[in-house]
Order: sequence, then structure tokens, then C-alpha cells
Amino acid sequence: MKSPYQFIDTPALLIDNELMESNLDFMQKKADQYHANLRPHTKTHKMPELAKLQLLKGAYGITVAKVGEAEVMAEHGLTNIFIANEIVGISKLERIKALNRKIKLRIGVDNEYQINQLEEVFKNEEKAIEVLIEVEVGENRSGVITDDQLLNLAKHIKNSKKVVLKGVFSHEGHSYKAKTIEDCIKAANESQQRTLRSGTMLRELGIDIDTISIGATPSMMHAGIIEGITEIRPGTYIFMDVGQGSAIQDFTKCAATVLVTVISKPTDERIVLDAGAKSLTSQNRSEGICATQGYGLVKNSNGIRLSGVFDEHGLIYNKEFRNSIEIGDKIEIIPNHICPTCNLYEKAYLVSKGSILREIPILCKGKTQ
Amino acid sequence: MKSPYQFIDTPALLIDNELMESNLDFMQKKADQYHANLRPHTKTHKMPELAKLQLLKGAYGITVAKVGEAEVMAEHGLTNIFIANEIVGISKLERIKALNRKIKLRIGVDNEYQINQLEEVFKNEEKAIEVLIEVEVGENRSGVITDDQLLNLAKHIKNSKKVVLKGVFSHEGHSYKAKTIEDCIKAANESQQRTLRSGTMLRELGIDIDTISIGATPSMMHAGIIEGITEIRPGTYIFMDVGQGSAIQDFTKCAATVLVTVISKPTDERIVLDAGAKSLTSQNRSEGICATQGYGLVKNSNGIRLSGVFDEHGLIYNKEFRNSIEIGDKIEIIPNHICPTCNLYEKAYLVSKGSILREIPILCKGKTQ
Repeated sequence: MKSPYQFIDTPALLIDNELMESNLDFMQKKADQYHANLRPHTKTHKMPELAKLQLLKGAYGITVAKVGEAEVMAEHGLTNIFIANEIVGISKLERIKALNRKIKLRIGVDNEYQINQLEEVFKNEEKAIEVLIEVEVGENRSGVITDDQLLNLAKHIKNSKKVVLKGVFSHEGHSYKAKTIEDCIKAANESQQRTLRSGTMLRELGIDIDTISIGATPSMMHAGIIEGITEIRPGTYIFMDVGQGSAIQDFTKCAATVLVTVISKPTDERIVLDAGAKSLTSQNRSEGICATQGYGLVKNSNGIRLSGVFDEHGLIYNKEFRNSIEIGDKIEIIPNHICPTCNLYEKAYLVSKGSILREIPILCKGKTQ
Repeated sequence: MKSPYQFIDTPALLIDNELMESNLDFMQKKADQYHANLRPHTKTHKMPELAKLQLLKGAYGITVAKVGEAEVMAEHGLTNIFIANEIVGISKLERIKALNRKIKLRIGVDNEYQINQLEEVFKNEEKAIEVLIEVEVGENRSGVITDDQLLNLAKHIKNSKKVVLKGVFSHEGHSYKAKTIEDCIKAANESQQRTLRSGTMLRELGIDIDTISIGATPSMMHAGIIEGITEIRPGTYIFMDVGQGSAIQDFTKCAATVLVTVISKPTDERIVLDAGAKSLTSQNRSEGICATQGYGLVKNSNGIRLSGVFDEHGLIYNKEFRNSIEIGDKIEIIPNHICPTCNLYEKAYLVSKGSILREIPILCKGKTQ
């Protein structure tokens, strides 16, 4: 399990080029098959270079979570961006206004407060701001829940001058917690139907919407896309991770790993690594098809996992593995959740068959505002 | 619970100046009282400016976890640094060699492999490298465990030409998981005694050591320091956090908070915040005096906690709080674990009584190599 990348200093983020390309091709093919636009969520990788690769392969545009991510992506040539999040606050909306002049931009909304703020900020603006209403479909997070909330918000937008409603979006994030693949597919179908129904309600109000957008990686790995859905927004599929690998019972598609060094072997079964919560995060998922055990999986191992992480240390307990590896050796760990892990690195090494192809800067790192 | 810092964009890291100063004074007084050197672990704050403030208040030197942190601290005028970690790998040891020429540097060791690598890297070097042996004292992580391991390693170092053994260090990290304060104090005392005994064994080998170093925040908040201990290395005390606040049953000493914005209130009890795992981490502690519930505590609230975090969202369920706060309002969250949280920010706002004193760059952010 010693990595071929012994010459890279650690901890370091590696991306296997072939695995990533294969993951990208899979999802593009899926979107094409169902005649839906693919608008990948780039908060996973945070790299304009990979966003552009996704476009090259056929993606329609990109999704981001934050204004700061949209700004960096726009600076690097991405011109069709959806911020799938409720953006609130005058300073952020001023930045949205500036960005809206340059690119095709949309943002998420789920409350009237936002619309009123947008009207205020955009009042002297020639180009209106296009928005999609978020519809909650089972993950108890953001988005309108009741028909009344949806219709009231839609009417409020209809009466506004500088905000144009272009559709609805949802995130079936609860599919991560589905108990079985069948439950995941069921959740995906129900979420799609509910989102479609919300779209129909807007059309019945006489609003000319063009977008009904859904998507999360676990559901898009398994479920179909119902006719009428115009757009899918999965993100994690580009790299996969332990959570996603668990859902498909296959870790060989995981394209991103953290290269770490063995720094100590204090007992006959314990290995100490030079990477912990600040290099791998300390996340795990407790339930459902994406549940993860431990704090990261040794690549190409038969289920060897980190049993714990401290800030800068990781621990593995495994006698056989301990004896097969030397202090100083470098191994690759598949992170439990790749999205917050990428956010910890300035750059990734794009690698292929033992060689470094190039370094890719993670330019949206830390752009949480 | 609305923060006075409504004009700062979010998510943002705030440090309350008075609370931080008070925390710094407490620990310096403790060290002075017991005639021990305070060598604060700066991996918590990662800011050279605050490291210098710690020296101004009487600290003897600083501790860091990584070579990269030591390099940044040295560049900014810190000249007495202990890397309390096993540094392995030729490229890192070459950096250690360069740093050792400029400042008073020490590193941790717990295995012969490291000593051999140090001998190789330092063979033509005039100035030897000073090391401390890590002794495991109850937290099952790194460090020598048995007397034989200690003595064999000490003899190995004694026979080396460019590695000078100056003492022992331990980290009573298991004090975080102590069931009661009494257990925490007991763990601290036992750890100190074991570390002292290791020091005595080295002196009996004829090795002229000057340092017996211990320290973690929970134990140093409660326990005394046994005579013979020359140095303490707590880190988190500068800011405290939900874990540390739990251990002292007092959250009013927490000096660092994450300012977040309420972006949605989709139900009559749910609040959605614009900060999640990428701004607060998703850590919690499951057991002991530092156990944390939820994913962060609303400052100055009577126990209102985040019930969950997504990458970029946080959730609070509380009807009364929900009705007392508006979309767009900014509130302060005390993170569960401040060390990996600081690592997510480029800068912190040093604040006092409603005003920003200045911005402090977090220059060691991401220096995990």
C-alpha cells in the first residue's frame, strides 16, 4: 500500500487523472442520456481548471455555494454560474451586482427579505438578477416547504422590478442517509417529483420559468432523471470519497487522496501518520448508504481505516499493515468527505501512473464569504 | 444574542481582546507560580503576532506542530521554537537544518529511524540539532511507551554525533476525556510523574538534560505542576472553546467566535446560518469533561447550539431564538474546537467592546507540512 508518490512532501492532496476523467465522463453521459443540463457543483474541487474541464466535457455551466467562489470562477473565465444558496446582506449583494454585469449569474432565494434587499441593491441597475426558488425536498435545511410559502414568494418576486424568477431548485441531500439503494432511488424520485410540481405551480402563476434543477451525487449515481427536470447539480462525483464509495460499494473510483507519511510505530500494531483533522478533517457520517467507519480509508487496502485523528496526527491500528510498512513510507488516504478536505489545500497534484502531470491551484479555497 | 459586529462580513473569525488577554494572564501566572517555563502551543492561533504577545507576557518560547509553522514563526521574529512532533523525511529535515542555523530550535523524536535520518542530514553541519524524546503518558498516540524503548532510544542518541538529547516531553491529551475534574487532575499528576521519571532515567544514563515538558489546556486549568517539571505547553487556553468551556463549566472565557449571518428561517423553529463545516469544522467530542453537544454554541445564549452543519450551512432549532432574530442578523458562534477552526481563516478580527482594534493575519494557516 506504499504510494508510488514517495517524492511528494506530505500531507498533500493527489488527484488521479484517469479516475477523475472516468468519473466526469460517467456523469456527463448520464445527463446526456436524460437530456438534462449538467451544472456540476464546484464547491467540491474549488478549482477553476477543473470547472473548465467539466465544461469541455459537456457541462452547461457550474454551480457554486458562495459569492467568493463565483468571483474567483468568473475571474478565471467561467461565465455561467449558479450560486445555489441564499445570499443575504448588502455587501454580498453589491458583489453580486458587480458580477451580474459580467457573466450569466443566478442565485438561490427562499425568503422575501432577500427579494427586498435585491430590489434595493439593484434599483438603479439595468440588468436584473435572475433567481431560482429553493424548494426543500426532504433534507431539513433551507428552501420553501409549503405550497403557500412557494406561491407567496413567487408572487412577491413577480411584483418586483429587478428580480426575475427563472425556476426552482432542490437538493436531495437526505439521499446520503437513505437506508438502502432502493430508498435512495425512492428519495430521488420523490424529490424530483416534488421539484417538478413546484415548477408546474409557478407556470400556473403565469411565470415563464426555464429551469427545474436537482441533484446530489448519491442519487445521481443510482436514480434516473424524470422528464421535465432540466438540470442536475452533483458535485462530489468528480472525486468520490469514502462516503460515496460506501454508497456504491466500490472505492476504486475514488480519485482524490491525501498522501501522508508514517512518522512512528510505537506499538506492534499502531501506526502514526503526519496528517489529522487539519489535513483530512475529522468528519464521518453515522447512518445510511454513505455511512463511514473511522476517519479515512487506506487506498488499495482491504478496509484499513484511520481509527482516529488529532489536529496533526492520524492513527491506524493493524498489526499486519504495521509490519508491512516502514517509518518514512508514504501512503494514500481516501478522505471520508472530500469537499471540506479540498478546502484545506492550496494546491493539488494531478497524478497519473506514478507521475505528476501538474499542480493545480485550489483558487476557491477558503472563499466562504 | 445579535452580535455588535453587524458591519463585518461573514463568516468571520473574531477575537475578543479582553477575554484573550485574561486567558493569557491566567496561564502565565500559573506557570510563574510553579516556576515552570510557559512555552505555549501556537498551533491553536497560528498567528506570529499573538505568539509575540505571549512572549511579552512572559512566555519562554513557543511550541509548534509542523516545520512550516516553525518557518513562518521564525520569519516573523520568533527565535526559540520547539516542534513537538516527530519530524520524518529528508526534505523536512533539510528545512530543519536551515532553520536550526538561525534560531534556537528543538524537535521531538520517538524512534531510531529519525535519529539516523538526522545524523545523515546533519553530518556536515557545525551546529547539532537538539531533541526531546516524546513519552506516551496515557493518550495512545506517539511517544515511547516502555522503559526499554526510552533507554534504547536515549543510548542511540548518546552515540550519535549531531543529535543532542536535551530532555523529555509528553502530552496528557487523555485529560480531555477524563470523566470528572478529579480524574483530570489525577491524569495530570500521573502524567507529570511518569514524565519526571523518564527524565530521571535519562539523567541516570549520564545525559545532561535541561527540559521536562508537559501540558494540555484542560489539565493546566485544574492541576498543579509538580516540582521538577521545567516547562508547560498548553495551547487552546488562549481562546478556549466549547470543549474547554465545558471542562470549566464556564463559556464566558471563550475569546474566539465565528460571526455568521442568519440567511433563512424556513420553519417556526429553524434558523439557517451561512457557516458550516468549512467555517466552523464539524468536530465534536463524545466523552469526558470536554464533551460537546451539537456543533457550536451561540455566544451569550443559555445553551443554544447548532444541531448540525453542512459544508456551508449551519442549523439551529429553537422557537424562541428564531422569533427573536431576523434574517440578515449576525450572531457569534463559539466553535467546539478552536484549533482546526482558526486554520480555516486568512485573518482574524481583534475586537473590543463593539469596535475592531485591527485585523491579524493567520500566517501559519495551512502550514501542515
